[in-house]
Amino acid sequence: MSDVTVTSDSIEASRVNGTAVYNTEGEHLGQIDDVVIGKRDGRVRYAIMSFGGFLGIGEDYHPLPWEVLKYDERQGGYVVGITRESLEGAPRYARSTTPWGDPAYGRSVDDYYGVPGTYV
Amino acid sequence: MSDVTVTSDSIEASRVNGTAVYNTEGEHLGQIDDVVIGKRDGRVRYAIMSFGGFLGIGEDYHPLPWEVLKYDERQGGYVVGITRESLEGAPRYARSTTPWGDPAYGRSVDDYYGVPGTYV
Repeated sequence: MSDVTVTSDSIEASRVNGTAVYNTEGEHLGQIDDVVIGKRDGRVRYAIMSFGGFLGIGEDYHPLPWEVLKYDERQGGYVVGITRESLEGAPRYARSTTPWGDPAYGRSVDDYYGVPGTYV
Repeated sequence: MSDVTVTSDSIEASRVNGTAVYNTEGEHLGQIDDVVIGKRDGRVRYAIMSFGGFLGIGEDYHPLPWEVLKYDERQGGYVVGITRESLEGAPRYARSTTPWGDPAYGRSVDDYYGVPGTYV
């Protein structure tokens, strides 16, 4: 046990909502509105982000594979190495809907960001 | 790819809230109100349950290590192999507080239920 572990990184999912997301240039992209978990394996698979006015995408939800987010203690938020161009073409959906009942949707997100599919 | 995987088990954390929790006798114990995740590793560590009137504990939150919950498709909820006696003496806290900033709290929950500590 070292002195490093004096604070916890555990947090209620309800409090993750609102956490800022930055790109690697330190620009504020948006915030996390929800996370998607596997009911059986208890893994956080996707973070759902909204971008506010960024990119003019307004009220859509952008799911990101959890693997692409790195938590940065200094900024107090997540950093993603995703370009503006990549986000513009990324999977997104209207807040009034939920695509998660269809396994193909998660796979389409994994494929878009080129991460190994954890989706079952 | 088999026919078994036609529905998804991915779900928004916000929708996990409200999921029923049963004991192994099929009794309805309560419901999940939130989940606690690791900001860095993205693992669901605890489910936070409220028991309604059960045990007369009213408005307290009962954290349970994720490992003790098994999702049961048939009942559409989680099943825990925990006795009433065990719940009565289990760690709990008032809704108006949050203990998760202190690493020792998670360890106390892990220790109570005898699960390997995943808490950092």
